Amino acid sequence: MTDSPQNTRILLASRPHGEPTSDNFTIESAPIPVPGEGEVLLRTIYLSLDPYMRGRMSAAKSYAAPVEVGDVMEGGTVAEVVESNDDSLRPGDIVLAYVGWQAYGVASAKHVRKLDPAQAPVSTALGVLGMTGFTAYAGLLEIGQPQPGETVVVAAAAGPVGSAVGQIARIKGARAVGIAGGPDKVAWLEELGFDVAIDHRSPTFADDLKAAVPDGIDVYFENVGGHVWDAVLPHLNTYARVPVCGLVAHYNDTELPPGPDRSSRLMTTILTKSLTVRGFIQTEFVKAHYAAFQSDAAGWLRDGTLRHREDVVEGLENAPEAFAGLLKGKSFGKLLVQVGPDPTR
Amino acid sequence: MTDSPQNTRILLASRPHGEPTSDNFTIESAPIPVPGEGEVLLRTIYLSLDPYMRGRMSAAKSYAAPVEVGDVMEGGTVAEVVESNDDSLRPGDIVLAYVGWQAYGVASAKHVRKLDPAQAPVSTALGVLGMTGFTAYAGLLEIGQPQPGETVVVAAAAGPVGSAVGQIARIKGARAVGIAGGPDKVAWLEELGFDVAIDHRSPTFADDLKAAVPDGIDVYFENVGGHVWDAVLPHLNTYARVPVCGLVAHYNDTELPPGPDRSSRLMTTILTKSLTVRGFIQTEFVKAHYAAFQSDAAGWLRDGTLRHREDVVEGLENAPEAFAGLLKGKSFGKLLVQVGPDPTR
Repeated sequence: MTDSPQNTRILLASRPHGEPTSDNFTIESAPIPVPGEGEVLLRTIYLSLDPYMRGRMSAAKSYAAPVEVGDVMEGGTVAEVVESNDDSLRPGDIVLAYVGWQAYGVASAKHVRKLDPAQAPVSTALGVLGMTGFTAYAGLLEIGQPQPGETVVVAAAAGPVGSAVGQIARIKGARAVGIAGGPDKVAWLEELGFDVAIDHRSPTFADDLKAAVPDGIDVYFENVGGHVWDAVLPHLNTYARVPVCGLVAHYNDTELPPGPDRSSRLMTTILTKSLTVRGFIQTEFVKAHYAAFQSDAAGWLRDGTLRHREDVVEGLENAPEAFAGLLKGKSFGKLLVQVGPDPTR
Repeated sequence: MTDSPQNTRILLASRPHGEPTSDNFTIESAPIPVPGEGEVLLRTIYLSLDPYMRGRMSAAKSYAAPVEVGDVMEGGTVAEVVESNDDSLRPGDIVLAYVGWQAYGVASAKHVRKLDPAQAPVSTALGVLGMTGFTAYAGLLEIGQPQPGETVVVAAAAGPVGSAVGQIARIKGARAVGIAGGPDKVAWLEELGFDVAIDHRSPTFADDLKAAVPDGIDVYFENVGGHVWDAVLPHLNTYARVPVCGLVAHYNDTELPPGPDRSSRLMTTILTKSLTVRGFIQTEFVKAHYAAFQSDAAGWLRDGTLRHREDVVEGLENAPEAFAGLLKGKSFGKLLVQVGPDPTR
């Protein structure tokens, strides 16, 4: 693929109604783009797939503008510089960029970050040492503020954000309870050192959660919503903090669930328990905390206190199916698409 | 009443289902209690009536234990010391106490605070210079954190908390938009200097609110819930703060409203707008901020930048009806029951 004279790109073909399907995407060939002044031509090695992309596929107003129908799907990438019109980068350099679902892309040299393959595998710049790791770090520490001995519960705990949340909670002296779907994920959480791991698909889920939090819940890191949130809410302690990072159970909702309307009960619980419920995306915290994160996370990765897992799908053409599976909880760890060969491995 | 050899007390007779009625209370005569070691006998002058009392009438777990059926209803009072078994207080002293809905009560001298009638009318210790003023101050400044030029919207703005919230917002350089029920309240908010005052009973309420917040809402001080919250939510800006102080529209709810279930949509809005929704009661902030509040509020009261209004109902026997009216939005400013004569006036 790297020697192909053509680019391969995946465009948003139509906005999904509910779950995204292959009909929502178009795969096409196109000329390889030509970098302008101060720009670089990049060959994609890894494309990151993340739940937030579901939001970008919809026209609804959110924290970021939607992808327009007919445009290349957005996404973070690790890429090799093929041509450079900027003194700061040379062919062969590996960079973190944001050129989306395509085999080649052009970016301003100012908008990419050079990676050092000697420090860590370059793919980690999309995961544990990148946006997903930072999402966990900033949301947990800045909003959740776990104290030693407190109980932190995290949903989607086998995902790249959730698995980091639980491990960082333990590094900070808190108890970590992970909620995930299926016995394989639960076993992995136990291997990572979570104090308790619970399967939300189990018929005894609510009782299992209750037993796991004898002192209640001080921090609930929300990635999911739905029946997991319903089970957590009664166990939240007074002054509990709820960083709301994602609601993957609702991204494909096409209509509101039937009644009764429980929104006033939710507000009443927030009031009577003096809860802090705080939505966020990591960009808000980059300026103040990204440097500290990089230093902390690299250290934890080196000494083995922070572990991670990558789920690598081969071939850009398989991105749509892998993305649909991600929203259904099929992946495990950080989901990456290997778009082209990794010269650092 | 002050010369009566008997005490008059109002007990919780039964827990209300929905709106409290006179059947939920018993008025009885009882012997005047006798103070023990370190205690004082107090004659109630003013009893404060506050929405939080509705929560205490229910058995449901909340931030405070419920009043037991057969017990005296709880409440803050300003009282005169009749007898003292403690060197710190003498007969004739006026104190802030918490002896509830009764003409006489006994309290530990340590648990009352002596008031100086020369500094401010003693009734203000139950309102603008007391719990309600502090609720506004702490919730707005610690959670809301309004910045100069931001827009603060407050519900139940003609209540003792809401009216202080709007005025303090203006003192801090923010725009204050007050929402209240009925033209008299709206006119009073305008008199207090709110930038805009809106009647939530008006058929054009949603449009009026939209017009009042051309730059969106940065802080929404929630006292109400219901259709006011529904109208506010779409106008909240990214990073808006929502101190949740009360939900008076829901205190008498006996069942959840019909569907659809909008709770997932509420969570989605919290996520996509990076909102902070934070329940609180003022006690949490007393240690860190009460002294600053007392100094600030007394200064603002003296120089006229913070104004207030008291709605005084005569006679303890009228407390149940006045309380029911409070929950329906009938009162205006701080609702007090004059239980006995005020020797300082």
